[in-house]
Amino acid sequence: APNYHIASIPGDGIGVDITQAAKTVLSTLSTASKAFTLSYTDLDWSSSAYLQRGYYMPEDWATQLRKHDAIYFGAVGWPSVPDHISLWQMILPIRQQMNQYVNVRPTRILAGTKSPVAACQKDPKLLDWVIVRENSEGEYAGQGGTTHGHTKDAIATELAIFTYVGIERIMRFAFEVAKSRPRKKLTMVTKSNAQRHGMVLWDKVFYEVAEEYKGVVEFDKMLVDAMTVRMVEKPESMDTIVATNLHADILSDLAAALAGSIGIAPSSNLDPTRKNPSMFEPIHGSAPDIAGKGIANPVGAFWSAAEMVRWLGNGKLDETAGRLMQAIANVTVTGVKTRDLGGEKSTAEVTDAVCQEI
Amino acid sequence: APNYHIASIPGDGIGVDITQAAKTVLSTLSTASKAFTLSYTDLDWSSSAYLQRGYYMPEDWATQLRKHDAIYFGAVGWPSVPDHISLWQMILPIRQQMNQYVNVRPTRILAGTKSPVAACQKDPKLLDWVIVRENSEGEYAGQGGTTHGHTKDAIATELAIFTYVGIERIMRFAFEVAKSRPRKKLTMVTKSNAQRHGMVLWDKVFYEVAEEYKGVVEFDKMLVDAMTVRMVEKPESMDTIVATNLHADILSDLAAALAGSIGIAPSSNLDPTRKNPSMFEPIHGSAPDIAGKGIANPVGAFWSAAEMVRWLGNGKLDETAGRLMQAIANVTVTGVKTRDLGGEKSTAEVTDAVCQEI
Ligand SMILES: CC(C)[C@H](C(=O)O)[C@@H](O)C(=O)O
Ligand SMILES: CC(C)[C@H](C(=O)O)[C@@H](O)C(=O)O
Repeated sequence: APNYHIASIPGDGIGVDITQAAKTVLSTLSTASKAFTLSYTDLDWSSSAYLQRGYYMPEDWATQLRKHDAIYFGAVGWPSVPDHISLWQMILPIRQQMNQYVNVRPTRILAGTKSPVAACQKDPKLLDWVIVRENSEGEYAGQGGTTHGHTKDAIATELAIFTYVGIERIMRFAFEVAKSRPRKKLTMVTKSNAQRHGMVLWDKVFYEVAEEYKGVVEFDKMLVDAMTVRMVEKPESMDTIVATNLHADILSDLAAALAGSIGIAPSSNLDPTRKNPSMFEPIHGSAPDIAGKGIANPVGAFWSAAEMVRWLGNGKLDETAGRLMQAIANVTVTGVKTRDLGGEKSTAEVTDAVCQEI
Repeated sequence: APNYHIASIPGDGIGVDITQAAKTVLSTLSTASKAFTLSYTDLDWSSSAYLQRGYYMPEDWATQLRKHDAIYFGAVGWPSVPDHISLWQMILPIRQQMNQYVNVRPTRILAGTKSPVAACQKDPKLLDWVIVRENSEGEYAGQGGTTHGHTKDAIATELAIFTYVGIERIMRFAFEVAKSRPRKKLTMVTKSNAQRHGMVLWDKVFYEVAEEYKGVVEFDKMLVDAMTVRMVEKPESMDTIVATNLHADILSDLAAALAGSIGIAPSSNLDPTRKNPSMFEPIHGSAPDIAGKGIANPVGAFWSAAEMVRWLGNGKLDETAGRLMQAIANVTVTGVKTRDLGGEKSTAEVTDAVCQEI
């Protein structure tokens, strides 16, 4: 069985709890399936390390990471460090420099979890989306600045940058995802009515790429504001969704909330060229309020782990990843759930139960 | 009774249907209350006019509008004109040049309407928000451009611009709104973890202004992505909300969807200095698919009309505006509703019923 080398970055807060839980479950899956093994480099790149030594990641971070097959990431962010510092010293540079230009966020209502939306409570199958997020440019390009910063004349800018190449590759990826799913349907999100430069290019390239998928993938376009309405009112009308870095950030949190808990949703930061390691993380944050209490929901971390296994296998470990997903569903359906899902179990109890199921 | 001079811009699609309905209801309110009268200038500034003559608004549009006490706006946008053209030739320049730097969007579950959220179906009082939107700058500043536009090397930018003065005035307005409401609570939305220039200034000015309201208004801060989760999961935990032009655009559509229909929500574009006319419009769009069929929901238009009366009265017509709001609620509660609210009445039938109630 192939061995994969994983860079493990638990990060801050509950990132530590859930990374530990994910490793436990992955080890059980490895033993039980005999389909793969993992070895880890444990990296203490975190806010507490930063507070001690002044940096999150060492200077050769990119070289270090490139020695691995994948990155498993917990969460970053801690009250004593301004968020824009922690994020721009770790997660965002990793996404950008590792060429992880795709972020994939599947959302559905897991067996045993409950959507807050009345219609989805009756029929959980209504909500089954994959959000494909542009992960390398747009509103997260990182440019901008401040003039007259410490005065009442201050002006600060954020420059969103969209490139043809950046848009084309995300559209192509999204169409391929849509094509691989039973419904073969892609909804593209934009705000080109108000943002008439970058978003207009976004639309244009979408329609160009769409030409190649005519008759194969059904597609439509939504404005981001109206998209939130459609997600609430007509979840069944969508399948695969493609949106900009910021729009998809917002929509994927909303999606997770509509599906029942932000604690279950995974996020895969992919370099589709496979020249750099891809990164897998739950979409939730470091949750300082419950950090270290042993009550964080590990399901998002498990689902992320399953996506990592699937990616590493590149077609050969789909069944093994599916086994983990099935184990998660078997556990949540019996009511072994953390508090955010309406249960009362601890992180460890849910982890044990999932290991048993595997 | 004072007479107010209104610039009426029905615009496109159902904007025409619902502006007509609003005028009917306002006329009944005027007669019944004897508290005010209105006279109108009807402006055919629309996509169909644009297609005929090449422009939405004449060159002296700003001068024309300034002769009025308020602007009543239906909707703009039509499939045969690219949205970024229609919007940047009408609604966005009006908001910016008329100094309507505040956009207020109250959202609650009207009697007789039904939220899609299970918890809110049980207790509609859970959701009662006022979203205060920065309406003059930020992501809608309008700067940006395209280089190598017609090639595969194209790069397009959108420049979001935040100024101290722009942020301070919206924060102050939002704190005053919060202070005037029973719960005295303000939630500020930001994305300063990823956007480290403009959004960091946004945060900084918020905390500066907040100093003045300590002990008077309770306040907290949310990231925009996490905010969508909180709106779905804990609607009762918020009251007044302040956010940037784009964030509030998205959140207010979501709010309307969670409250039961995008067709009921109003939007007031205010110049708090009262040197320019303020503009009142439902938040819904022109809905080409149902335009001219007589089935558009006029409630958003009525609620906008009530907000206009309240603004014009500047404290003296609150009761009159309340009378219209009560009439709307009395009608929706009896089931006289359009299809989007689960009823089967026409625009005209709802309009008649509201007039009867007044
Ligand atoms: C932590 C933060 C920078 C990040 C983002 O905005 O991308 C998070 O919200 C996410 O969705 O992964
Ligand atoms: C029509 C469009 C420009 C507008 C906006 O984005 O502001 C609309 O969505 C709104 O919310 O009023």
